[in-house]
Amino acid sequence: MRSKIVVIGGVAAGPKAACRLKRLKPEWEVTVIDQDSLISYGGCGIPYYVCGDVSDEKELRSTSFHMVRDEKFFASAKGVTVLTRTRALGIDRQEKTVHVRNLETEEENRIPYDKLLLATGAQPVDLPIRGIDLDGVFSIANLHKAIEIKKRIARGQVGKAVVVGGGAIGIEMAEAFTDLWGVETTLVEYMPQLLPKIVDWQFAAMLKTHLEEKNVRVITGEAAIEIIGEESGKVTGVKTGSREIPADIVIMAVGVRPRSELALEAGLHVAPWGGIRVNNRLQTSDPDIYAAGDCIATTHLVTGKETFAPFGSLANREGRIAADNIAGDVSLFPGVVGSYIMKAFDRCIASTGISFETAVAEGFDADYSLTAPADRAHFFPGEAIAVYQLVFDRSTRKVLGLQGFGMMNDSISARIDTAAALIAKGATIEDFMAVEMAYSPPFSAAIDSINAAAYVADNLCAGLLRKVDMDRFLSWMDDFESEPDWMALDIRHPQEAKDYVKKFGPDRWMAIPYNEMRDRYQEVPENRTMIILCDAGTRSFEVQVLLDHVARKNSMVLSGGFNVIRRIGVDWLP
Amino acid sequence: MRSKIVVIGGVAAGPKAACRLKRLKPEWEVTVIDQDSLISYGGCGIPYYVCGDVSDEKELRSTSFHMVRDEKFFASAKGVTVLTRTRALGIDRQEKTVHVRNLETEEENRIPYDKLLLATGAQPVDLPIRGIDLDGVFSIANLHKAIEIKKRIARGQVGKAVVVGGGAIGIEMAEAFTDLWGVETTLVEYMPQLLPKIVDWQFAAMLKTHLEEKNVRVITGEAAIEIIGEESGKVTGVKTGSREIPADIVIMAVGVRPRSELALEAGLHVAPWGGIRVNNRLQTSDPDIYAAGDCIATTHLVTGKETFAPFGSLANREGRIAADNIAGDVSLFPGVVGSYIMKAFDRCIASTGISFETAVAEGFDADYSLTAPADRAHFFPGEAIAVYQLVFDRSTRKVLGLQGFGMMNDSISARIDTAAALIAKGATIEDFMAVEMAYSPPFSAAIDSINAAAYVADNLCAGLLRKVDMDRFLSWMDDFESEPDWMALDIRHPQEAKDYVKKFGPDRWMAIPYNEMRDRYQEVPENRTMIILCDAGTRSFEVQVLLDHVARKNSMVLSGGFNVIRRIGVDWLP
Repeated sequence: MRSKIVVIGGVAAGPKAACRLKRLKPEWEVTVIDQDSLISYGGCGIPYYVCGDVSDEKELRSTSFHMVRDEKFFASAKGVTVLTRTRALGIDRQEKTVHVRNLETEEENRIPYDKLLLATGAQPVDLPIRGIDLDGVFSIANLHKAIEIKKRIARGQVGKAVVVGGGAIGIEMAEAFTDLWGVETTLVEYMPQLLPKIVDWQFAAMLKTHLEEKNVRVITGEAAIEIIGEESGKVTGVKTGSREIPADIVIMAVGVRPRSELALEAGLHVAPWGGIRVNNRLQTSDPDIYAAGDCIATTHLVTGKETFAPFGSLANREGRIAADNIAGDVSLFPGVVGSYIMKAFDRCIASTGISFETAVAEGFDADYSLTAPADRAHFFPGEAIAVYQLVFDRSTRKVLGLQGFGMMNDSISARIDTAAALIAKGATIEDFMAVEMAYSPPFSAAIDSINAAAYVADNLCAGLLRKVDMDRFLSWMDDFESEPDWMALDIRHPQEAKDYVKKFGPDRWMAIPYNEMRDRYQEVPENRTMIILCDAGTRSFEVQVLLDHVARKNSMVLSGGFNVIRRIGVDWLP
Repeated sequence: MRSKIVVIGGVAAGPKAACRLKRLKPEWEVTVIDQDSLISYGGCGIPYYVCGDVSDEKELRSTSFHMVRDEKFFASAKGVTVLTRTRALGIDRQEKTVHVRNLETEEENRIPYDKLLLATGAQPVDLPIRGIDLDGVFSIANLHKAIEIKKRIARGQVGKAVVVGGGAIGIEMAEAFTDLWGVETTLVEYMPQLLPKIVDWQFAAMLKTHLEEKNVRVITGEAAIEIIGEESGKVTGVKTGSREIPADIVIMAVGVRPRSELALEAGLHVAPWGGIRVNNRLQTSDPDIYAAGDCIATTHLVTGKETFAPFGSLANREGRIAADNIAGDVSLFPGVVGSYIMKAFDRCIASTGISFETAVAEGFDADYSLTAPADRAHFFPGEAIAVYQLVFDRSTRKVLGLQGFGMMNDSISARIDTAAALIAKGATIEDFMAVEMAYSPPFSAAIDSINAAAYVADNLCAGLLRKVDMDRFLSWMDDFESEPDWMALDIRHPQEAKDYVKKFGPDRWMAIPYNEMRDRYQEVPENRTMIILCDAGTRSFEVQVLLDHVARKNSMVLSGGFNVIRRIGVDWLP
């Protein structure tokens, strides 16, 4: 049987599925339609094209062996027919045809299918504010926009940029503008932090500090309420509730939503937020229609709830799975753990599973361990501090998520990927204590960061370690009267602690070095709550155990310690 | 109850257990004894100390906050008594005492214990050959030896070095000599490959090629049969079966063995090869005696068999687990998957689980996928090719191991660690296809290497892909008559293929570019077995599917393709 397969969408999931299908069923007729002229490109590479790391947009739509993936390539190399500049207008599920229009000739047509795959992707959310149609306002919707943005910068037309939206694309675009082109860039995010819902506030704060170090102005907790421009129609700035920010270019990056109008009109089940609902075989509510990529609703494996996971990597995986099922094999896509990683200048930030904030909101018995270990043997050249937060459920001891922040290399990646593999399997703190990270000084510490994070979680569950939350500690630093009985116990080297004692006074800041504690614990006042402070929190834990043992049980450890404080950026360091 | 705990061995597992015990049971008396004066050091860092990356040996035995971990530190900071230069002579299990001798004073003593931990580590294997006592022959047994080696090099006494043993320590020492000091170095390994039993031959060959590029002379398949020297007792060289290699210094690195004499003499169960047998709680056959670290026999989680896993990372994990159990908690160490990673100049080589060779020897229905993907998005600056081999069982579809070779960064580490987490859970090819690697162009390709390796395995199991082994292909390249009906089908760009056609003749080497195959497949002879060749094997697979479809089913794909061939190093490239 020579089945006819139609794929709507030619960026990631669509081409992947089409090519896989032709390998499984070489005799089948596979047609991909896309309204754009440029297809099969690495959309996630757009910021790197804009910044100049990728010099030609063709590289984003080329294979690793340097062939451009255009219609001709798909026909000759893959045996797949691609119709570009062809818009799908509707699906007739009874007739099993797709109604299409050629955008060049305006000719309309009906393409019959035996099985149909919707790979319609996602599109940028449009903010319902005035001025978004002004000349110089862009969303990162496709390669054409990227090409136009880069042209303007290269022509020297962009001195100032505003990026609206503090998610990955917004941050990457801000980096692209600032780093290579020296464009004066402001990033505006209406939520109180960058990467909202993706990482917890400490991680967003560390990221923000780094962006600021790199000359990106970051404004959080402020909404863009209008894009302003000249009468000529050219953009001149962005208005927020509290200010006007001048701009020659404005990037709108406030998120994406599934492109599911076709599915909805065809009467397929679509989530209220727009995701096309599919089963584990990526079949929609019509068994002859599959969906894959950014347009679908999938399941979050930690919360068990419906979620939106628009990533190029998942789109590729889903494309393969859809193809297998269309070809008659059984292949499952049970859901996602939500792995996330991005470069921001010289840093890497990543997460998998859910954040602490989400875990609390979801009703877990949530807790977290915040650690700041060395990313490889501390004596190895190039070693640097990374920060990790392991989120877990105290009752079940299940690990719910891991976040990491560190240098721009693959070290965070290694821990996040390992965690993702474990979390997808329902792993507990014990599994994270036991996971066998390949060890050698150039690659990891003898006690790997991921094991160490689990040890801290284990100590927290056992009640051996009692911590104070960083936000509570920082509030106290802003107003000592908020917790009048607290006192900092700084156990770092006396040289590190002395300026603090001087600045905050011996009634608020006490310094006893870690290694002298066994001899000097009697100096610790019994009627105060001691907040034990060191660089990472590790020594503080040991001191807490010691103080507990000598019946001074009123102490809390500041997990992550000064390594986190310094990265978050505070104004009270002496 | 104030229990007395004695720990024999002060390098990794011992100190870790002692410190953990004092945190769990601050009131207990914990004593560590060690015959050496230097303790608690990062033994794995020794090569980096010798090469100068680590400038002072003290860094190897310092904390991350720069305190030297000596007896004083353990006493004041940890509350642990450490007796250095104290040798354990015997254990009296009835009396529950350890018989010790102070090596400074020669005084003997009996130290009582309630629970005893053996953390006696491993020691270098001595080759039973003449000359190993000559001046200038060293094993990497401890820090003292390392200090002495570095002194000699720094004094300019070392122009030529021979390293006997092609395991991690040998290779790292060869790098240390060559890289910083420019010492003319020869590495001698008596097995036919480097890293025997750890990686398969292709990976060893890629490593060897890189070492040679870096001016290390590598001799495999040749045993050192004598160390030769002057009458004065100074070493002058190493004799193998076929040559004499001059040397001012000789490093013996032919492996390590568990230091278990004490355990054996005390009547504890010890494996014939020397590993102290323990249960999952790290208890020896005497319930009051535990063992942890390099001296124990543990279980390989893939083979289920007893194994030896002398790694600093495991020693630390085991130390913590032993302490938990000694303190009365239940904490398990079920075994290892055998994760392994090392830096070799500008490359990284790593493995987890078992190699293909081992899998065959163990009776698995073993097969492997050999892939050569980009280590991040192919358009991202700094992208490089990595090589992976996924070993699996065709019947159960269980993944048995993964090996990786690539640039010296953490990218291989990420995939190996993720694989280790999965393999420890008994994961199948499906789990590897599904594992959610965090994606962004600076960190990975949209189809991650680990997913891609699993896809190839899946295609192999499905019979969709038929491969030829690299060694069989290389034999044919050496002697075309070994497979008279074979013919290479080179589907790379014509510019890449043309010199090959010219060199090997159109009867042996045919070139049809990948993207022209659909139009030109009739040129492929029907009576020959076609060996399809490209850079990575990916395009070759597509061509094989196409040829199968047009009833030219006599083809095999060279997995890994020229990316692997070039890294292995062959002499026939045009």
